[in-house]
Amino acid sequence: MNNPTKASLPVIKRLPKYYRYLCSLQEDGITSISSRELAAQMGTTASQVRQDFNCIGDVNGRQGIGYSVENLLSILEQLLFGDGDLLPTILIGCGRLGKAVSRFITTDTNGYKLIAAFDVAKEEVGREINGIPIRHIDELEAFCAQNHPKAAVLCVPREGAREVSGRLVDLGIEGFWNFSHYDLSVSYPDVVVENVHLGDSLMSLGYRLRNQE
Amino acid sequence: MNNPTKASLPVIKRLPKYYRYLCSLQEDGITSISSRELAAQMGTTASQVRQDFNCIGDVNGRQGIGYSVENLLSILEQLLFGDGDLLPTILIGCGRLGKAVSRFITTDTNGYKLIAAFDVAKEEVGREINGIPIRHIDELEAFCAQNHPKAAVLCVPREGAREVSGRLVDLGIEGFWNFSHYDLSVSYPDVVVENVHLGDSLMSLGYRLRNQE
Repeated sequence: MNNPTKASLPVIKRLPKYYRYLCSLQEDGITSISSRELAAQMGTTASQVRQDFNCIGDVNGRQGIGYSVENLLSILEQLLFGDGDLLPTILIGCGRLGKAVSRFITTDTNGYKLIAAFDVAKEEVGREINGIPIRHIDELEAFCAQNHPKAAVLCVPREGAREVSGRLVDLGIEGFWNFSHYDLSVSYPDVVVENVHLGDSLMSLGYRLRNQE
Repeated sequence: MNNPTKASLPVIKRLPKYYRYLCSLQEDGITSISSRELAAQMGTTASQVRQDFNCIGDVNGRQGIGYSVENLLSILEQLLFGDGDLLPTILIGCGRLGKAVSRFITTDTNGYKLIAAFDVAKEEVGREINGIPIRHIDELEAFCAQNHPKAAVLCVPREGAREVSGRLVDLGIEGFWNFSHYDLSVSYPDVVVENVHLGDSLMSLGYRLRNQE
């Protein structure tokens, strides 16, 4: 079996999409699929599918039958969700965006567990966000020392993100779901960062709409 | 000048980040910057910066001085925002996520203007979202025939997205900011789609945290 940690970042970013498609195939009672069929449904190429599957483990398709959906799903589940242990996660910034995206940590089956939420605004402190009480950011050090969160969701403006991310790295946070415009990975190359730059995404869309082929 | 429509998708996706960095340089009173300095701040390479700038127009840096921040910003503004005309945009799905991301259309300077919001839930209809009244989805055809929106933000579940996206394409929508799990570009290869798959992003982060080097 190949070493799954060898998968490159572009491959890693495609794995969730394979997982979603294979889940919906399984729901429809489909037990095997060829790289060609899967590629057509996902808008990619059969060669890309085969290369990606090659990176993730022992998933050889069988001539004339295709890949086993069950086998692929079990490999992807192990890679994406481990043994089912949820990653303890904290939310920094409980404004509208923080509240909306926290649902992906609490109600979806993405492999995370929201254990605390923090804000600087006194009027937010003591309120709840999906059943989790909002704490003042001053409690961050004490909370992390006791509860050891592994991931943090950053839903604060750029300046706030710059200040708090150093504290979070010092407190042992290993992964960031970063909605701020602060580029963490420049200052902290060793932490894992997944950026969601919504404004950038809109500007790219605008470029393509305004400069269409 | 190079034809800006020749920029590849990866280049287009990097342009907003250049724009943000150059804006903050300008705020700090910096008038010129070398590709090497800009690359270091952005966590990329000088060669990447030079290649990207080559794609977008007449932005030759001068030996020993670097690129003019003002010139770069004016080229990027023209590409990303055109002549300052805002793209008329509608929001489909006014749940928590729809409400949160609609602020990027109404309060940010990303080049869009929210002109209507739609939902299927009767209890949402008549309420406001950032000052825009929420209409029932049945009013979509009449509204679009009269107001000609150009872009749509999809904040609905996958099945809803599949159904409504065909209607939207027929109604002349050219660009989608898609938060649903429905992959529009497979069925409608001619429309411009910017996908924001928040669950996928979290799963990729989880993979990297669980299978760290």
